[in-house]
Amino acid sequence: MRMVDVIHSKRLGNEHAAEEIRFIVEKYTAGEIPDYQMSAWLMAVCLQGMTAAETAELTLAMAKSGDIVDLSSIRGIKVDKHSTGGVGDKTTLIVAPLAAAAGVPVAKMSGRGLGHTGGTIDKLESIPGFRVDVARETFIEQVNRCKLAVVGQSGNLAPADKKMYALRDVTATVDSIPLIAGSIMSKKIAAGADAIVLDVKAGSGAFMKSLEEAQLLAQTMVDIGKQLGKRTVAVLSAMDQPLGREVGNANEVREAIEVLRGGGPADLQEITVELAAHMCVLGGVFPSLETAREMLSDMLAGGQALPVFKRFVAAQGGDPDVVDRPESLAQAKFRTEVQAQADGYMARMNAEQVGIAAMLLGAGRKTKEDTIDLAAGITLRKKLGDPVRAGEAIFELHSNKEDDSEARVLLEQCYELADGPVSPGPLIRGVIE
Amino acid sequence: MRMVDVIHSKRLGNEHAAEEIRFIVEKYTAGEIPDYQMSAWLMAVCLQGMTAAETAELTLAMAKSGDIVDLSSIRGIKVDKHSTGGVGDKTTLIVAPLAAAAGVPVAKMSGRGLGHTGGTIDKLESIPGFRVDVARETFIEQVNRCKLAVVGQSGNLAPADKKMYALRDVTATVDSIPLIAGSIMSKKIAAGADAIVLDVKAGSGAFMKSLEEAQLLAQTMVDIGKQLGKRTVAVLSAMDQPLGREVGNANEVREAIEVLRGGGPADLQEITVELAAHMCVLGGVFPSLETAREMLSDMLAGGQALPVFKRFVAAQGGDPDVVDRPESLAQAKFRTEVQAQADGYMARMNAEQVGIAAMLLGAGRKTKEDTIDLAAGITLRKKLGDPVRAGEAIFELHSNKEDDSEARVLLEQCYELADGPVSPGPLIRGVIE
Repeated sequence: MRMVDVIHSKRLGNEHAAEEIRFIVEKYTAGEIPDYQMSAWLMAVCLQGMTAAETAELTLAMAKSGDIVDLSSIRGIKVDKHSTGGVGDKTTLIVAPLAAAAGVPVAKMSGRGLGHTGGTIDKLESIPGFRVDVARETFIEQVNRCKLAVVGQSGNLAPADKKMYALRDVTATVDSIPLIAGSIMSKKIAAGADAIVLDVKAGSGAFMKSLEEAQLLAQTMVDIGKQLGKRTVAVLSAMDQPLGREVGNANEVREAIEVLRGGGPADLQEITVELAAHMCVLGGVFPSLETAREMLSDMLAGGQALPVFKRFVAAQGGDPDVVDRPESLAQAKFRTEVQAQADGYMARMNAEQVGIAAMLLGAGRKTKEDTIDLAAGITLRKKLGDPVRAGEAIFELHSNKEDDSEARVLLEQCYELADGPVSPGPLIRGVIE
Repeated sequence: MRMVDVIHSKRLGNEHAAEEIRFIVEKYTAGEIPDYQMSAWLMAVCLQGMTAAETAELTLAMAKSGDIVDLSSIRGIKVDKHSTGGVGDKTTLIVAPLAAAAGVPVAKMSGRGLGHTGGTIDKLESIPGFRVDVARETFIEQVNRCKLAVVGQSGNLAPADKKMYALRDVTATVDSIPLIAGSIMSKKIAAGADAIVLDVKAGSGAFMKSLEEAQLLAQTMVDIGKQLGKRTVAVLSAMDQPLGREVGNANEVREAIEVLRGGGPADLQEITVELAAHMCVLGGVFPSLETAREMLSDMLAGGQALPVFKRFVAAQGGDPDVVDRPESLAQAKFRTEVQAQADGYMARMNAEQVGIAAMLLGAGRKTKEDTIDLAAGITLRKKLGDPVRAGEAIFELHSNKEDDSEARVLLEQCYELADGPVSPGPLIRGVIE
């Protein structure tokens, strides 16, 4: 088999045979197919597409390019959860202990933030002493003991995807549904869970700006799961404003603890319960979604997931006292406001711009090498639909830098008020399974 | 400007601005754009196309990536001739001295053969002593003195095209009309002629198998010429069988000399006169094509181009006696035949397979590094439309290898006989200007 012929076949729009896909991934990972052939093939894929069978084969080949984590020594059905990324998305911090409290073993690998989106691992690191690098055996032992562990991606997980992503990033071949779906799912499959719940976000703060694109991505990932024998459910959710009221790291952990105590913003409670409900049904803990939603709402309201979160924090070296005193988490030196210039109702918000503003305040990274300020962030004083009066705060900025003007300019321009009342659309936009 | 954005723009099907095209070519030639970005862009071009303006800009940028030959010290309008390549295509050996004899200065750079197509430079080298590497000043002085020089491509001519072609060859991005047209025309423009006559071939022995593709390529090249202010005419001709009767090197030179003496196959005479007529009209030597065709036919029949050819051979160090004694050119040790198995009429021939058979006998190169046997080749004893009797020779094989079975198998399968008379289509299929 010659790579030039494989490229030509995709250029013509043909469907690859399974062995062709395996050839591409294996030889590329081994360095036997050069970048310049791979990038030509990737561009052909972007423009000619891939079938469901090709996408599943690609995913499997990428997953198999490195270690497949063996979670078999964890009792029960292991259910993973993945978000396609958004702004203010701290759901893992709540969903994971909630599902664990209900009896689903959660052995999760998470990532760091980049650009306008945050990462669970960064957020957890704002808890003093918390360690995200845990040995494989300790990780498994912890899940058996606490039902929950969340660690950074370690080891040789889907190296093919890592190498391909780096190439896609510089060859304008990132935004392709089969390639995105394959990239996400290859890592989930390598991470070893039995079933997967996907939170696929659509809107101004998500990678997929339209619901149609998000649906296509969700369907593609669910199809991959099906083809590879992993039960997969995708929840479509709105990312037309940041989730909850906090964007940052320490402040997002504080908000997550608030929800785990039975309080916090309604949207965050809603999506948390929805995602945990799907995890619990896949995990065989509750017989139906209706029961799961009801039980989990009660558990969340009753603070029953909080002790699980506390044990989890302690197990990974974090200071468990922060759970009782979240105000002890890092606080920024300066607090300023962006105030409304007129009366009205909050009608639209560019969540991506809010995420970028938070990044500029120090909460995120422009490049992988940047360091972040765990105390920096933004608090939303108004959410979609809220009435607004001139002079009221829309955003509160938390920063350790005296000059926050760059972020301020973005925030001043990232929302629109309407004259009359506005009713925001639903948060949950559908489920694909 | 970032290459990743330029690639993305072409991926979306946008038209590049002139400065984007220049950026790509200049930075790629300088090694500042890596192969993996270039190949992604090339694939996007293959699938999204380029406008006439983009193609012209690409051509100009590639031509300017190296030296542009200055032919201004040659008197008269310099007209170049280029063939897109075929089997048995020895037209340059006849057209060039014929146009020169009529008064058009011909300062030509030619290439070597590869795969199933031969190259003028290889053919000329079958004349003992003939040198294809001539210094620029000697070359110009020779054209002023003999009206004709044919040399190998020397110096730093369109290095961008050379680098891009090598990459296209291994990334399945060769067969793209704008890229092919740009590649050909960039070298012609760098070679410095005032006007260009293109022989665009269509059929089984040509790169373009259909007339429609050949027309599109011809139109694209003529458009480039127009946009860049070079008068360009394309003659479309059939390559559904080898041109003339000889395929090889020394044997093709012998056949060319036969035509220059006023004899030889009719198809070779016809295309020679047609191409030379366009050269003469562009060169201002004859007022109309009709006059040119008439005058050149007479000149060819009267052997008036022969002395020009002889002087040209002598000027480049070749033995001029071969012109009078072409039988003294290299002859192969073995001659065998492929004979007809049945009676009929020659209905179809796969010219590419004939070219490959000649290559296998030693007349051509599989890779650029191969050496060739100048005496090896094939003689067509039957052409399209000819009546054939069982046992008659279809092909005569000239080889210095005892075993010619590989070529023989190809030749036995590369033609079809019909029961009734067959009339071959016209050789000249159109003119685009």
